[in-house]
Amino acid sequence: MSQAPNTYLALSGGVGGAKLSLGLAHVLGDRLSIIVNTGDDFEHLGLYIAPDLDTALYTLADRVNAATGWGRSGETWSFMRALAELGGPGWFQLGDGDLATHVLRTERLRQGASLTAVSAELARRLSIAAHILPMCDEPLRTVLESDVGTLSFQEYFVRERCRPRLRQIRFDGAAQAKPTRQVSEALADRRLAGIIICPSNPWLSVDPILAVPGLKQALRAARVPIVAVSPIIAGQAVKGPAAKIMAELGMAADSRSIAGYYAGLIDGLIIDVEDAALAPDMPLPVRVTKTLMHARDDKIALARACLSFCAELGPAASAR
Amino acid sequence: MSQAPNTYLALSGGVGGAKLSLGLAHVLGDRLSIIVNTGDDFEHLGLYIAPDLDTALYTLADRVNAATGWGRSGETWSFMRALAELGGPGWFQLGDGDLATHVLRTERLRQGASLTAVSAELARRLSIAAHILPMCDEPLRTVLESDVGTLSFQEYFVRERCRPRLRQIRFDGAAQAKPTRQVSEALADRRLAGIIICPSNPWLSVDPILAVPGLKQALRAARVPIVAVSPIIAGQAVKGPAAKIMAELGMAADSRSIAGYYAGLIDGLIIDVEDAALAPDMPLPVRVTKTLMHARDDKIALARACLSFCAELGPAASAR
Repeated sequence: MSQAPNTYLALSGGVGGAKLSLGLAHVLGDRLSIIVNTGDDFEHLGLYIAPDLDTALYTLADRVNAATGWGRSGETWSFMRALAELGGPGWFQLGDGDLATHVLRTERLRQGASLTAVSAELARRLSIAAHILPMCDEPLRTVLESDVGTLSFQEYFVRERCRPRLRQIRFDGAAQAKPTRQVSEALADRRLAGIIICPSNPWLSVDPILAVPGLKQALRAARVPIVAVSPIIAGQAVKGPAAKIMAELGMAADSRSIAGYYAGLIDGLIIDVEDAALAPDMPLPVRVTKTLMHARDDKIALARACLSFCAELGPAASAR
Repeated sequence: MSQAPNTYLALSGGVGGAKLSLGLAHVLGDRLSIIVNTGDDFEHLGLYIAPDLDTALYTLADRVNAATGWGRSGETWSFMRALAELGGPGWFQLGDGDLATHVLRTERLRQGASLTAVSAELARRLSIAAHILPMCDEPLRTVLESDVGTLSFQEYFVRERCRPRLRQIRFDGAAQAKPTRQVSEALADRRLAGIIICPSNPWLSVDPILAVPGLKQALRAARVPIVAVSPIIAGQAVKGPAAKIMAELGMAADSRSIAGYYAGLIDGLIIDVEDAALAPDMPLPVRVTKTLMHARDDKIALARACLSFCAELGPAASAR
């Protein structure tokens, strides 16, 4: 009798996380569940917008704009031009095709559907086999205290282009959030063989997921290896403000700080070949591989490295 | 001391009404107020859509698609393609640029602005001098009883392409509607010199306006000439199902029936040169002119004919 094939769980923010998720989905198909950050979600012009869910959807559906890593390929911008003419806000770009996702999702949410249900519907329509799971169905919002005052995530990230210095990050609504049934079931799956924290921003993309009450404990309670991919390569974030934030929060911008930040949660860290020299000093098992993902093959290779690292760590992690 | 220049009021449905409104606006500028049918308004995908207001806005802003008479010129359709991919409804076409109007209007209405206020804001942004006035701010919906059952206006007009046979037309919510302050003020304006009923469908576009309680009486009480432009030329409607509806409701599809329908309300009827032979038998003053509007000059010429007809009828109408 053949063994049931293993399942895996990924935690993901936006672009970087979606790239690795694509590699994992290529290998695992429907044996992959991705818990996606929804701390960036916001309402804009009456539309519910979920940037990281959209990036996951478009990336896994092979419809993402390859140049930016977010938004749709072949997008047009008539809406934004007309909106500007009518005096509407221009700081958040809404592509014409992208709007279909926002309009449909908003309508379904208003009809009473959960964000989890709507995400599953959209994924099914886009023929995505992996399970794209919002981290929670309740509003949990990343709010940033900065040198220019309190900012919502999109105000900081898009409108202010990450220029303000961060003082504190908080997650409004976290106390009312809870893991969804689908997330809990993915974690309780007896076939679960590993959890991969994608190379997303630990503070802005992974922390909101871990802020869902009970989720961090549930990850540990799954008793499977948890590996993270460092988002820092040679002191720089591949994309986004991770390195800048680390400096503002008083950390060295390197993979050692990432290991320290995830201490107690992860069993192993994957770092880039450019940082191979850091490996001997790391306080936990490390796998050194190419983590920069440009081509599809890069994503698949990194995914395979994550899975083999999990397999290697398996017995030790289970003994925790 | 020079006399204050005259103001005029037009009643308009969609394409045909907007064309004449454009001609009137060319001559009158901000001395024109247009009461626009909102009986066709509906909510679709969570968006408040006002087809006749949009046609008025786009036409008067010189942004209308000249080929169709509605929608925006140079429109793109990425939203509809993406919507189809996601399983959304395709029967009502939403152009990418057009969506900006719907999204902004819907947001303003949700914020508590009246339809009148939002229409004024949009008109101002589009540099329209004439006053585009929804017939009322309350929902008054045209509902059609037909041989295939009860249909909302858009179901009948767009989805079913006017194929069902009409049995009855009703206006849901009419009892709760009332003329807006802006409509009442336009009617009470001492400079008001005439009211023009555009060549819109009397049953589907003008009747909903006249169904607003008190509005018909207020038109008469203004004691200025009321002239209508017949939407029927040589037994055919220029656009839409007017002739078909007349047959279904047991009328001959000609301008005599239009005169009969508006009897007691209008003081004069403008009919097309093709129907000149009908003029001698008409039960009211008639002006014969070219009513088919293709070029901009056609619209301006018909507008001037309306205004001169009002001037001619003036003393008699005032004596009513």
